[in-house]
Amino acid sequence: MAFSPLVDELVESLRCLPGVGQKTAQRMAFHLLEKGRSGGERLAGALAGAMSGVRRCERCQNFSDTPVCGICENPKRNNGTVCVVESPSDLLAIEQAGGYDGGYFVLMGHLSPIDGIGPADIGIECLLDRVATDAVEELILATNPTIEGEATAHYIADRLDGRNVLVTRLAHGIPVGGELGYVDGFTLTHAFRGRKPLAE
Amino acid sequence: MAFSPLVDELVESLRCLPGVGQKTAQRMAFHLLEKGRSGGERLAGALAGAMSGVRRCERCQNFSDTPVCGICENPKRNNGTVCVVESPSDLLAIEQAGGYDGGYFVLMGHLSPIDGIGPADIGIECLLDRVATDAVEELILATNPTIEGEATAHYIADRLDGRNVLVTRLAHGIPVGGELGYVDGFTLTHAFRGRKPLAE
Ligand SMILES: [Zn+2]
Ligand SMILES: [Zn+2]
Repeated sequence: MAFSPLVDELVESLRCLPGVGQKTAQRMAFHLLEKGRSGGERLAGALAGAMSGVRRCERCQNFSDTPVCGICENPKRNNGTVCVVESPSDLLAIEQAGGYDGGYFVLMGHLSPIDGIGPADIGIECLLDRVATDAVEELILATNPTIEGEATAHYIADRLDGRNVLVTRLAHGIPVGGELGYVDGFTLTHAFRGRKPLAE
Repeated sequence: MAFSPLVDELVESLRCLPGVGQKTAQRMAFHLLEKGRSGGERLAGALAGAMSGVRRCERCQNFSDTPVCGICENPKRNNGTVCVVESPSDLLAIEQAGGYDGGYFVLMGHLSPIDGIGPADIGIECLLDRVATDAVEELILATNPTIEGEATAHYIADRLDGRNVLVTRLAHGIPVGGELGYVDGFTLTHAFRGRKPLAE
């Protein structure tokens, strides 16, 4: 853009957002400059705060502002049950559906040998340690119903073979091939109620 | 979100971007936190810089980092011709098409009585002053080919009636009802070449 290095830099920077190309970035920049300056300033502060302040919870790996997250620190949650999800948006969908009061473990991904993502990259050892240390009674494998999600669930179940922990998988009802974070609360609640031991 | 006030605030703030709802804002926030922290930091800085540093050019009303923008200050541009556009993205489309070397006037909108937008809101007096002061020979009305854009063009032409300035409108070839910022460079260049005096 010929007229303003600051606008150029804003447009370029907006392209780091997923799904935002050149035209959309331009439209966003002009919108903020024309009628959204206070929103733009708020976003600048929120980004700076989150990029430097958000870490991973030491217990569940979810995003957290503190060493241990609010869910892990909540004494009302049942520590005997741990629900394993792929991403924070999956956790969020389950929380918003309500009805689940156990803990979580957020893999931040799934096993994917083709992309070089192995057990260490998604924190499987931390999860196994926690199952032992916290005397977890039930581990709910709520990875996505995709090929990678199923493979990840089976890998975790295999690693827990012989340990005194009930391993369950969410009931069917979740659309196959879908993303857990986009399932409605009603379906999710049903899937939780209908969860079954993992048969190998 | 139960787990992080910083993430909550980031998601909320992202919703100030046009076309970004709750789910998209969440996806953007998680993407930045998971794999785009350096991009997020860059965006934070770009936003802060642009929101506080970008003003309107005193001559053409376009966004600028300096009191007078780079195009207005460029001695190689022909000051005798001024192209009137509705928005910075229209200006950008014309610049990218190439072949035009005059100046601009950016209305940052169009007349819209229903929304209470009158001549003063889009700087018509500044434009008329400039036509007189700079001895402008030709004023190209490149407002959008929409009802409001046409009405704005005719209003400006009426106000210039009797003055010694040629008032032209871009040639047809621009899709009727379309947005000028989305027209391809080839069509735009043709429309420039085929511009005609405005017949009332
Ligand atoms: Zn936690
Ligand atoms: Zn200017």
